[in-house]
Amino acid sequence: MSTWLWHSPLRDSDLAALAPQVSRWGFDVIELPVETPGDWDPTAARRLLDDLGLGATVCLVLGPGRELVATDASTKQQTQDYLRHVIDVAHTVGATAIGGPAYTSVGRTWRMDAAERRAALAEWADAIAPVADHAAQAGVRIAVEPLNRYETSLFNTVSQAMEAIADLPDSVGVLLDTYHLNIEEADPLAAIRAAGSRVAHVQVCANDRGAPGHGHLDWPAILDALRDIGYAGPLCIESFTPENQTIAVAASIWRPLAESQDRLATDGLAYLRNLLT
Amino acid sequence: MSTWLWHSPLRDSDLAALAPQVSRWGFDVIELPVETPGDWDPTAARRLLDDLGLGATVCLVLGPGRELVATDASTKQQTQDYLRHVIDVAHTVGATAIGGPAYTSVGRTWRMDAAERRAALAEWADAIAPVADHAAQAGVRIAVEPLNRYETSLFNTVSQAMEAIADLPDSVGVLLDTYHLNIEEADPLAAIRAAGSRVAHVQVCANDRGAPGHGHLDWPAILDALRDIGYAGPLCIESFTPENQTIAVAASIWRPLAESQDRLATDGLAYLRNLLT
Repeated sequence: MSTWLWHSPLRDSDLAALAPQVSRWGFDVIELPVETPGDWDPTAARRLLDDLGLGATVCLVLGPGRELVATDASTKQQTQDYLRHVIDVAHTVGATAIGGPAYTSVGRTWRMDAAERRAALAEWADAIAPVADHAAQAGVRIAVEPLNRYETSLFNTVSQAMEAIADLPDSVGVLLDTYHLNIEEADPLAAIRAAGSRVAHVQVCANDRGAPGHGHLDWPAILDALRDIGYAGPLCIESFTPENQTIAVAASIWRPLAESQDRLATDGLAYLRNLLT
Repeated sequence: MSTWLWHSPLRDSDLAALAPQVSRWGFDVIELPVETPGDWDPTAARRLLDDLGLGATVCLVLGPGRELVATDASTKQQTQDYLRHVIDVAHTVGATAIGGPAYTSVGRTWRMDAAERRAALAEWADAIAPVADHAAQAGVRIAVEPLNRYETSLFNTVSQAMEAIADLPDSVGVLLDTYHLNIEEADPLAAIRAAGSRVAHVQVCANDRGAPGHGHLDWPAILDALRDIGYAGPLCIESFTPENQTIAVAASIWRPLAESQDRLATDGLAYLRNLLT
């Protein structure tokens, strides 16, 4: 369960209040975004989660000024440093994956012809390679997330991401997010199956960012496809609070997507648990 | 079939070349966007379409500077004048509906609390009312289009639009676009049924803006829902060319969505015709 359903940025005090609740509801894993290094303390978080028996996954957050493609050397290096830091945070909290658009800032889009796209992918592969080595050493995978067309123009589909990571080490995988799959994939189930063992993380929510089970997605078929590829990691519910200016605008959340944020979490959990048992 | 699949803005010479082709392929109706009044000549278009036995629908286009809500009186009046012009164009070419986001410019989003939203809807109702009267006199309906959350924050769902038009005359209806329904509606089929006789126009494409039949939408169920409400108007395929800077950026088209633009049109037509016979 992503803490973004309630908070942005995440603070130690938020996590101290939220993690026990998330654990009581019956979640196995909590997802912790690293917006600005230092927002929350990874060592304290690890102690808290261990006491609760709660696992962790970590989100990388590329806002303005964090870029690995079509930018200057200094921005690229700072972004690599940031990603290495997020990997270290993941290692500290016991997460085995960091997920997110590990390529360009969310909302940055531009047109590319075929040659420009090839050049951008080569530039990205060069920039992510040292970060991938750092991830391998830390026992953490980078789950590269294709985003819908309004949030990026680089990786909109799973096949675009799969092509880009083909020659990179296995410490680079893909993140499947049902919200983006619904918009961009002609066949979301085929996309899941094609990603196979490169799936490093999965985020779930309804087509409108509500609770899994609430929208029109075919959840039994999605879970079957994930079973077919042997995916054994968490299904992390990711949605956002409409009550916080920064996250509501970043995620374009203009209306409540459930009776309450808590209900979105607990309804989603109940629905998925029911399907999985 | 929307001319945006190939051109933006539409010119008389484009239409002269395209309309016979669209007619030969077997389309009944061609959709003509009015980006800037004067881009194409409505009287000449009517002659051309009549010769081909081709019907017309018309798109209103609210780009920057065209606003009916949260703007100054002069902008509001110019936008009303523009919409009256589009209604006159529709009347000239023999179209009975003008479709599009007849409220704010595409891409303009902002957060509103419940009171601010009520105020915005009241402001919009006041601003559209004289345009609705003009439409009624011209025998044309304004089909208000809910857009996905990245393109607007005012009307994302059909129920938001239905609530807003409830007290307006029947010359104001809603436009159902399968692309936006897929993103925003928890139950797209229920949304279609709830719109009932207020449906004034329907635009169709795959969930990724490709040809109907190519993506993961349930087309037989969509057509059943439209049949249930007695919708008798056209199903207009709307997609956009990735080859034109303005329209590709406006619609966030970063990759080809079919083998060719012509194939998108003809595959979509063949698929729908097959389902409808």
